[in-house]
Amino acid sequence: MQSTHTVSSYIIQRLYECGVNHIFGIPGDYVLGFYNQLLHSNKLKIINTCDELAAALAADAYARVKGFGALCITYCVGGLKVVNATAQAYAEKSPVAVISGAPGTKERTKNPLLHHMVRDYETQQRIFEHITVASTILNNSRTAAAEIDRVLSMALRYRRPVYIELPRDMVSSPIPDISTSVNYSYEEQIDPMAMAESVEEATSMINSSQNPVIIAGVEIQRFGLQAQVLKLIEKTGIPVVATILSKSVISEDHPSYLGLYEGAMGYEWVREYVESSDCLILLGAFMTDIDFGISATPIDSKNIINVTSEKLTIRHHNFDNVGLQAFISNLITADIRTREPLYLRNRNNGSPSNCFSAEIGKKITVQRLFHRLASFITPDTIVIADVGDSLFGALDLVIHHDTEFLGSAFYASMGFAVPACIGAQLANPKLRPLVIVGDGAFQMTGMEISTAVRYHLNPIIILLNNRGYGTERRLLDGPFNDLQPWQYKTIPEIVGGGRGFLINTEDEFDRALEVASKHLDSFCILEVRLDPNDGSDALQRLTDILGKRVR
Amino acid sequence: MQSTHTVSSYIIQRLYECGVNHIFGIPGDYVLGFYNQLLHSNKLKIINTCDELAAALAADAYARVKGFGALCITYCVGGLKVVNATAQAYAEKSPVAVISGAPGTKERTKNPLLHHMVRDYETQQRIFEHITVASTILNNSRTAAAEIDRVLSMALRYRRPVYIELPRDMVSSPIPDISTSVNYSYEEQIDPMAMAESVEEATSMINSSQNPVIIAGVEIQRFGLQAQVLKLIEKTGIPVVATILSKSVISEDHPSYLGLYEGAMGYEWVREYVESSDCLILLGAFMTDIDFGISATPIDSKNIINVTSEKLTIRHHNFDNVGLQAFISNLITADIRTREPLYLRNRNNGSPSNCFSAEIGKKITVQRLFHRLASFITPDTIVIADVGDSLFGALDLVIHHDTEFLGSAFYASMGFAVPACIGAQLANPKLRPLVIVGDGAFQMTGMEISTAVRYHLNPIIILLNNRGYGTERRLLDGPFNDLQPWQYKTIPEIVGGGRGFLINTEDEFDRALEVASKHLDSFCILEVRLDPNDGSDALQRLTDILGKRVR
Repeated sequence: MQSTHTVSSYIIQRLYECGVNHIFGIPGDYVLGFYNQLLHSNKLKIINTCDELAAALAADAYARVKGFGALCITYCVGGLKVVNATAQAYAEKSPVAVISGAPGTKERTKNPLLHHMVRDYETQQRIFEHITVASTILNNSRTAAAEIDRVLSMALRYRRPVYIELPRDMVSSPIPDISTSVNYSYEEQIDPMAMAESVEEATSMINSSQNPVIIAGVEIQRFGLQAQVLKLIEKTGIPVVATILSKSVISEDHPSYLGLYEGAMGYEWVREYVESSDCLILLGAFMTDIDFGISATPIDSKNIINVTSEKLTIRHHNFDNVGLQAFISNLITADIRTREPLYLRNRNNGSPSNCFSAEIGKKITVQRLFHRLASFITPDTIVIADVGDSLFGALDLVIHHDTEFLGSAFYASMGFAVPACIGAQLANPKLRPLVIVGDGAFQMTGMEISTAVRYHLNPIIILLNNRGYGTERRLLDGPFNDLQPWQYKTIPEIVGGGRGFLINTEDEFDRALEVASKHLDSFCILEVRLDPNDGSDALQRLTDILGKRVR
Repeated sequence: MQSTHTVSSYIIQRLYECGVNHIFGIPGDYVLGFYNQLLHSNKLKIINTCDELAAALAADAYARVKGFGALCITYCVGGLKVVNATAQAYAEKSPVAVISGAPGTKERTKNPLLHHMVRDYETQQRIFEHITVASTILNNSRTAAAEIDRVLSMALRYRRPVYIELPRDMVSSPIPDISTSVNYSYEEQIDPMAMAESVEEATSMINSSQNPVIIAGVEIQRFGLQAQVLKLIEKTGIPVVATILSKSVISEDHPSYLGLYEGAMGYEWVREYVESSDCLILLGAFMTDIDFGISATPIDSKNIINVTSEKLTIRHHNFDNVGLQAFISNLITADIRTREPLYLRNRNNGSPSNCFSAEIGKKITVQRLFHRLASFITPDTIVIADVGDSLFGALDLVIHHDTEFLGSAFYASMGFAVPACIGAQLANPKLRPLVIVGDGAFQMTGMEISTAVRYHLNPIIILLNNRGYGTERRLLDGPFNDLQPWQYKTIPEIVGGGRGFLINTEDEFDRALEVASKHLDSFCILEVRLDPNDGSDALQRLTDILGKRVR
């Protein structure tokens, strides 16, 4: 069949089939031609951010909510600005396609030094090889379609970023033959013998255990396996916890949900339940030092069944080609005995809800702020927490549905939340973002709220202003942890939209939230002035551990 | 001799010996211990920026003015934010040391996944290998001193960035034996036979030519060879031009200075003089497509003597181990005949100065703005131009001394100018920065002006507000070239210092410049509202060329 595609229309078509409707970025001369194609495609809407970094963070959040994200930037001066955000997507498993413009294949041979070049023409691709699961330079129209399919399939296979470089003289090159349609629902490779043996062993381990527990990890969200995990829980009666990175993967209202496992940083009874379990079932979980309260693992590997999209480990041996989805399916139909559900809970992680009463004129604290937010969030809220106490405090909030909590919870890169709220709300306009961000992170990327005005989004930003890097103050303090004070509530005047609030007391916070909840036309920013040494309980627990190691 | 150094005190000592008095960055838990050492060293003052990217841009500008720069950031989430700025320093030859904190050597073995990690522990170093001339991980106190010396020497040898990773458990490790003192004035390797032959050939080529011309490139500034080049010019009477990247390397008031060579983008008579020369002497110049007006080279290589710090080429053959400094020295003493100086000029590149008279109430244009600035700059001004028409327009300004013009003139990365003015003024507090920046670039990094307030700096920011990416509009227009409008003059209210001006007319601009010149206490920002389609003459010439190639 004769294709009517060009290289650029094929990229656009395939991204669209992956579920992408918005593409984030900033144009530059090497990518202007492709921007023009995007503009006229009517498939992907261009979202212009102020800075490229923010485009990548927004695309990452978009991918977490919608399943796939894309950004489009120019060569090197754009692409090398998004290295950190792409690394975050890699570390936290978010499938984002980085599309970079580039010098044309022909002009490369004529000129030894073209603007935006670093060392040689391949430098940018080589850098991205370290932080993506696949990359390609589309310098041949005959192989371009296959290359695009290969790279996008890898993003879906691993739920990690990929890199596509488009030389500007290839934008309109016709693709001679269209390849056969790609099945974008990634097919796991299954070895039936390994599957049978592993399911049998797991079943026997679970059945002979006294207090098994499931740790539902981030891959359950990334591969869309929430319903299957629920089925397994409901059939077997085994209780479940989430990790920091997977918070909200299971509705936190579910009766079998014990809470968030965060090692020594979390609630003691969750920690004790998990760490004393005689059968830990890890489903799509990558356990990091943050999951253990920034500590080495306290978990005994002899009691572990650990399956991810990449491999299955039971105790100390591995099975290849079992597959995350297939293994869970097989566990559901296996002969696992049904237990009485625990129903220890629902203690909502210990956080009280719907019982906040503001004390008039009383200086607000971090603890009371989160206490108030607990009753503010609704099933239509998506909570997006930046790094630091914004995240730690937010971990105690009860999230009602799945995928309604976003944070850079393992890679822990400051400045994620404001750009992320743009991507998240475009991915699902039914959700209103509630952004919780410290002043340190806000000074990095917060002005990107301008983009929310441009595209008529209405996030609510809670800015925890403690005049510095609060988490670090507790580890080792010095003037390097202080910030230049900003008048954050004035930002709407600069960016031409939004409402600002300055908050010192509990009742001011209460009233501002009321107003914000009804103000749907634009963003609201609530600058909350806090004591520089104030912090959430979780932060106190965490810094007690960390402080021992930085000196 | 028993050393009293630790790994961190040794880094600090060596950077100090390289001429570094300020270090730019943001702390994080993996680097807090080193920040504490910096704080108490009394040798390097910590300059906290809002974002890591800005720290790297400031360090780059600092290096261009002072000879060496340094930044200090945390592992991955800090380091990977500065990849683009480090790439710029690589491309434009600026010696910057990137010091990154990192997980301790011991904790790496205990934990498979530590926060801020991407793929494995070496990922960050491997990425930096592509954009630095040397890198090291200081994981052994016995070799640390030699490694630090090796890496810093490479930065001086190539005037390019280097990467030093400091695991946090090495910060206080004592260094057992101090290595012998390093000579930080880099010694060129010279082959006397190659030198004699090449100087003889060059002398004969120059003496038999009718209209030789010297192109003084960026390495003349980077290696501090301005006085030598002047000597050569004054002895031989050969006229000289600069390139965009080396603008101001020779005082633009010098009688032998012909102007800036910018290919078809520049003044026609400079272009013609250079391109018709029968003997082009390139000294430390890397000729890029921007130098030729974003075109392939129009220069005939049979008439070329081209020496850089890396090699010497005469016509079509190369000499190794000749050395930039040594070759210039030898040319000075060689038997080159003295010509009558041209004295075609000084036409100041054709730009009129000291003759601007504001027309009251008349809408200001880009051309008139630069016309006015031509008489505003003094020998105490350092002009810092961002990418786009800020740069192209500024190229016509006459710079009175050497090293008083900064721009990302080859790598062309937007957002350089505001962070750069912080580094430049700290590097030389006698100079007052005059920043020329477009609204697109300002929205990327402009809020970093907050750091100028924090450290009591007083740059003057001329913000060319044409509501979008003006350069791109001329290549291929679409809504993706538009920006959300900001009220830039309100920014002082947010960052707690500075003065804002809104300018529509010539007389408003005139008055604001007057006020700014006398307001020494803080920064001034002059938002100049321009017609979206307005642009400098240079931009018009450039976009005529570029526009043919992006569609």
